[in-house]
Amino acid sequence: MKALRIGMVGYKFMGKAHSNAYRALPMFFPEAPIQPQMAAICGRDADAVQQAAGQYGWAETETDWRNLVARDDIDLIDINAPSDAHKDIALAAAKAGKHIFCEKPLALTLADSREMLKAAEEAGVKHMVGFNYRFSPAVRLAKNLIESGRLGQIYHFRAWFLQDWILDPAFPLVWRLQKDIAGSGSHGDLGAHLIDLAHYLVGDIQEVIGMSETFIKERPLAENMTGLSAKGSLGGPMGKVTVDDATLFMARFTGGALGSFEATRFAAGHRSTNSFEINGSKGSVKFDFERMNELEVYFTDDQEDVQGFRRVLATDAAHAYSHAWWPAGHTIGFEHTFTHEMLELMEAIHEDRQPSPNFHDGVKCQAVLEAVERSVEERRWVEISEM
Amino acid sequence: MKALRIGMVGYKFMGKAHSNAYRALPMFFPEAPIQPQMAAICGRDADAVQQAAGQYGWAETETDWRNLVARDDIDLIDINAPSDAHKDIALAAAKAGKHIFCEKPLALTLADSREMLKAAEEAGVKHMVGFNYRFSPAVRLAKNLIESGRLGQIYHFRAWFLQDWILDPAFPLVWRLQKDIAGSGSHGDLGAHLIDLAHYLVGDIQEVIGMSETFIKERPLAENMTGLSAKGSLGGPMGKVTVDDATLFMARFTGGALGSFEATRFAAGHRSTNSFEINGSKGSVKFDFERMNELEVYFTDDQEDVQGFRRVLATDAAHAYSHAWWPAGHTIGFEHTFTHEMLELMEAIHEDRQPSPNFHDGVKCQAVLEAVERSVEERRWVEISEM
Amino acid sequence: MKALRIGMVGYKFMGKAHSNAYRALPMFFPEAPIQPQMAAICGRDADAVQQAAGQYGWAETETDWRNLVARDDIDLIDINAPSDAHKDIALAAAKAGKHIFCEKPLALTLADSREMLKAAEEAGVKHMVGFNYRFSPAVRLAKNLIESGRLGQIYHFRAWFLQDWILDPAFPLVWRLQKDIAGSGSHGDLGAHLIDLAHYLVGDIQEVIGMSETFIKERPLAENMTGLSAKGSLGGPMGKVTVDDATLFMARFTGGALGSFEATRFAAGHRSTNSFEINGSKGSVKFDFERMNELEVYFTDDQEDVQGFRRVLATDAAHAYSHAWWPAGHTIGFEHTFTHEMLELMEAIHEDRQPSPNFHDGVKCQAVLEAVERSVEERRWVEISEM
Amino acid sequence: MKALRIGMVGYKFMGKAHSNAYRALPMFFPEAPIQPQMAAICGRDADAVQQAAGQYGWAETETDWRNLVARDDIDLIDINAPSDAHKDIALAAAKAGKHIFCEKPLALTLADSREMLKAAEEAGVKHMVGFNYRFSPAVRLAKNLIESGRLGQIYHFRAWFLQDWILDPAFPLVWRLQKDIAGSGSHGDLGAHLIDLAHYLVGDIQEVIGMSETFIKERPLAENMTGLSAKGSLGGPMGKVTVDDATLFMARFTGGALGSFEATRFAAGHRSTNSFEINGSKGSVKFDFERMNELEVYFTDDQEDVQGFRRVLATDAAHAYSHAWWPAGHTIGFEHTFTHEMLELMEAIHEDRQPSPNFHDGVKCQAVLEAVERSVEERRWVEISEM
Repeated sequence: MKALRIGMVGYKFMGKAHSNAYRALPMFFPEAPIQPQMAAICGRDADAVQQAAGQYGWAETETDWRNLVARDDIDLIDINAPSDAHKDIALAAAKAGKHIFCEKPLALTLADSREMLKAAEEAGVKHMVGFNYRFSPAVRLAKNLIESGRLGQIYHFRAWFLQDWILDPAFPLVWRLQKDIAGSGSHGDLGAHLIDLAHYLVGDIQEVIGMSETFIKERPLAENMTGLSAKGSLGGPMGKVTVDDATLFMARFTGGALGSFEATRFAAGHRSTNSFEINGSKGSVKFDFERMNELEVYFTDDQEDVQGFRRVLATDAAHAYSHAWWPAGHTIGFEHTFTHEMLELMEAIHEDRQPSPNFHDGVKCQAVLEAVERSVEERRWVEISEM
Repeated sequence: MKALRIGMVGYKFMGKAHSNAYRALPMFFPEAPIQPQMAAICGRDADAVQQAAGQYGWAETETDWRNLVARDDIDLIDINAPSDAHKDIALAAAKAGKHIFCEKPLALTLADSREMLKAAEEAGVKHMVGFNYRFSPAVRLAKNLIESGRLGQIYHFRAWFLQDWILDPAFPLVWRLQKDIAGSGSHGDLGAHLIDLAHYLVGDIQEVIGMSETFIKERPLAENMTGLSAKGSLGGPMGKVTVDDATLFMARFTGGALGSFEATRFAAGHRSTNSFEINGSKGSVKFDFERMNELEVYFTDDQEDVQGFRRVLATDAAHAYSHAWWPAGHTIGFEHTFTHEMLELMEAIHEDRQPSPNFHDGVKCQAVLEAVERSVEERRWVEISEM
Repeated sequence: MKALRIGMVGYKFMGKAHSNAYRALPMFFPEAPIQPQMAAICGRDADAVQQAAGQYGWAETETDWRNLVARDDIDLIDINAPSDAHKDIALAAAKAGKHIFCEKPLALTLADSREMLKAAEEAGVKHMVGFNYRFSPAVRLAKNLIESGRLGQIYHFRAWFLQDWILDPAFPLVWRLQKDIAGSGSHGDLGAHLIDLAHYLVGDIQEVIGMSETFIKERPLAENMTGLSAKGSLGGPMGKVTVDDATLFMARFTGGALGSFEATRFAAGHRSTNSFEINGSKGSVKFDFERMNELEVYFTDDQEDVQGFRRVLATDAAHAYSHAWWPAGHTIGFEHTFTHEMLELMEAIHEDRQPSPNFHDGVKCQAVLEAVERSVEERRWVEISEM
Repeated sequence: MKALRIGMVGYKFMGKAHSNAYRALPMFFPEAPIQPQMAAICGRDADAVQQAAGQYGWAETETDWRNLVARDDIDLIDINAPSDAHKDIALAAAKAGKHIFCEKPLALTLADSREMLKAAEEAGVKHMVGFNYRFSPAVRLAKNLIESGRLGQIYHFRAWFLQDWILDPAFPLVWRLQKDIAGSGSHGDLGAHLIDLAHYLVGDIQEVIGMSETFIKERPLAENMTGLSAKGSLGGPMGKVTVDDATLFMARFTGGALGSFEATRFAAGHRSTNSFEINGSKGSVKFDFERMNELEVYFTDDQEDVQGFRRVLATDAAHAYSHAWWPAGHTIGFEHTFTHEMLELMEAIHEDRQPSPNFHDGVKCQAVLEAVERSVEERRWVEISEM
């Protein structure tokens, strides 16, 4: 059994999720050809990173990612720092010959993400991007149904990622609401996932047109810059929100399907409704991440008196990853999208191939994100090939 | 086209529902071999019955059912007066050679209901009992699936009819809460429907054991004795509730299936959840009357990666009665269970056969109702054959 | 009690629905200040219209709408002939001083619909347009919640009307697939309803951009030109489909909300999913016509441990129209959206005011429909004020 | 930070679940006053237990539980071997002064479980029983609503645990289908969970009456005795099924509520529907384990036009355990009911109190299980106080 020595930059939401995945792999997927070794975790705040290391189970800590990248006892750099830091770390990691796992969005701009891809390719390292929703068993089932032709020709893809955590005008100006750090708002944070799912399930997008809005234009300055549950209060100093609260767009796929996308943080009642529906000539599927173990499936060739969407609980022996978990009917949680993601990473490295999704997928996603942004600014349809 | 001249006794909830069904038949089922003619409506309050006649479209009125029964221009007596009046009217109608449609429960006691059946049989008239839920298209679909063997051998029938309209202790003592008029409470009102559905879908019951409770034992005397939305207030004179608020029972079917039944008016949040599920060796079905156009259907022989309950909207061309209504996907409401019921009545009379369900079914239901009551009193299993 | 003498042109799907509503009014809404009198029905096929008159309960028949309009014993012309006939009949009716009820879409073009509005206004008659979905009790509840401010400021409106009845390439070229008769396809047929609901619930639209597709470009010529369940077969002569199979668009409301609209007849598994969701600063609502008695409602100020979408069954005493129907929990069907619609028509005429929705609403809807079409052709955002 | 040295007997389904919980505790609940130390795992098959130790992360192995119990470097014995082994191990562990965590059902008989409780009490050790469903955040929410009086007086508890894994007659005769090892079938395996939830949420049960059935009386002898997904085939040697396939019972709670319970392994389409509903005078709750992050909640005092069951996703900051996991809307899986269970175990030991649920709860559950069995045999109501 080979071990892959991981050096991870970041220790907040995604750092916790990745750590948990690394811990889960040997327990639930002992057959993985490589297992991760949680070598070192890196963050600027020495005390905080020390505490995270203890809690998550990392052997050592670093406070400067340059040091981490420079260590020769590290095989892979896992980047889940805020988005504005992705590029520099990735470039350095590639240069140092490390494999790279980078959270989405790959970078703040398409140009940056292309630079990252180029660096990784030139260095000959493995690269992966964190589109974790691909790894829900129910999403895998959707993929299988499409690839095997059981849905026929795809006509429609509609997807929406709805949240409500910044609905309150008193919610403070955390980093995710600042363009220079986050790149964009709901678009890059939520829409990026939808775009990747569209690429994964339906294929390439030919052209897009979008619309965007920042409903609340100023917010209280934040004491604590991170977290989805930060608290703020009105009455004190305010700062300008520089990202979108909501971005919608329509798309035409190269295969002829029509797409509809909506990402918003202003949908009251939706904590995290990441949902899509796909309609084909032979059937349809529906997914909602709040019920992530389920896929609704319809087939046009069912007997005529019993046609209807089936609620499939993707925990049966026939479903992806189910052998690793619990008996049929016993659901798994959000965190194991990452466990499955890291399994793919290990297997790809072992098989000396690029993981899927990798930086190519990150770049493709970024191209659509930017095409949408351009279409919003210029109020016109934008071809992805323009980008 | 023959017309069947109807004389109806009662003009409240059920009287309105029946009237509407008679009006709907020629419009939606013009192919019916006989159409109803709304000849006369009968009630004790001359003004009220006059108004009902005008509103519902009855040609004439009577204030004494004996007069109605005595008329020779009436072919069928429709009985939907309070339950304690069913027997006398039905016996007189039979004696007069009229066909009879009687609302459920057939009578206050099993003995009475048997007397009614005997009278109808001796008179050679057609008789029908108002188990209207059989006539939901989704219930018909369940019936078809079972009869054609598509669910295999039946193992389980579980059913519950949950309401909450008397949850408030200030709700007054209407006739439905008085044993001498209503016979029983939730048991005869709601449970009777479940029992009939069990008979219809699964078959005969061999033995039962029940439990029963009256949670609120005294209620304000009612000013207005009828209606499910009567208003009362605490602080004034009170009367004793003499029927059950809730009755549950277990049953063993002669075919080997196990049954579970629950009827209650104390289930907060349930306005009228009339629901059942049936599990067989090859599949299952689920029904909830609040979504009466839908049937959930499961088959064990679906492909192993797409097994799940299908939500079938029973409005397709393949579904019972759908040709009469609207395009697929356009639902119908509660009232048309009665329209379909009356269609069966017309067809049966035309074909010179007994309608289904008829007084035999009413008696069978009453036998189970009383067996449950005996099992509650005597705290033991009671065989239906004892009754 | 005044009677309104109706002359109706058309006797297919909508003709049946309107007839049923006229029949239902006196029974369920006896308090209506005016009741319809089903005076005459008109269609070109004498035998067919004669049969429809008998089945639906119309006193007389006509085979030329010009004759119908010319009769002085008619107060209102109800137009539900195919869309290409709306304009001429409406102009003639207005000229003859008749009130007008016209099915949607009002006309094939915005110009025509404006001409119709102008004619009706100059004639001083009452005019109504058949956006029946406004009259679902659950939609009324949504309206009340918005108007009373209980949802706060509206941020998002998303709506989709999904059907699948032409998914099969062998489905024939019925009139609804021909531009010269139907005006447009899914856009005018389904999208029009969504646009009207948006106007009704959220307000005016400022600008739109759309996309459109005809997935199946040729179909078998139809033997029978009408009906949603027509049968065709491949192998014979084919004709060109001249309308859209699917049209999507985005919109910006003048009040600042973002809108997303999708109408398609290619969504496998959706017989008639007419659904919308509205997100405001204080809450959200969701509606799906396949469960038309229900509205899902969310409030941000619910106690923090019990926040969630409520499934409200809009059959309680507190809900619109419920007094006319059945006890709480007993649902009504599609057809009674028309019953309520006709109630509004009667009340408006009695009160000498324009019904709502009227031809102004029809014109507004047509303006958005055409703005979307222009935006599709010219591949750009189109202001409604351009139209 | 104190460590609790665990010695665990068993390494199959529950052994894996417990191991995972011990691994998860320090990561997700670093604030726990005691953390588990995975000292030794025990099983009869040396190779298999060695592999389990490696996979799950146990420091050492034992092949005889007597040796494990005898070790003085073990603080707690975790018993998840098949049910027939529980008693001997627990008695020995108590005698050795070890704390005990025992999976449910506590023992094969009530007498045995009482002996276990007595031994643990006399030894003065801490004892806990594995009713893990109590630890779903959604179940905790139900508990809070009831305890705080927000549901009022409880009238109804109905619960069903439906599975379908032995529906196929070819499914082999695994240990769970043999009375001498498993004690009972669906009753002790599934019904036990429902009984404990009833005790936890509603209170003590006064009397019960049950019915039971073994639908398939002989099955193929199993090659592999464990596992819910074992494979068998007809045609070879058969053995007698000595446990129930389904057991239903009714109960009266001492507080006056009526209870309905159903456990079956013959409900096609239900992989693991562990579901209950509770109706009180002020509201209701509904739970289904297949959607374990959700609780449906209804309040009678909601405004009259927006009354309905709310779908509460119990992942908000206000919900139990949520601080440990992911942002609101990100669900957790089955396995973390055990993580929370082990947290309670650690906290109780730290606070020198008995955990909840403990052997008292195990005995209470066993008393109801046996009372039901007696009621089935003797065909009569059985008071729990008889037992």
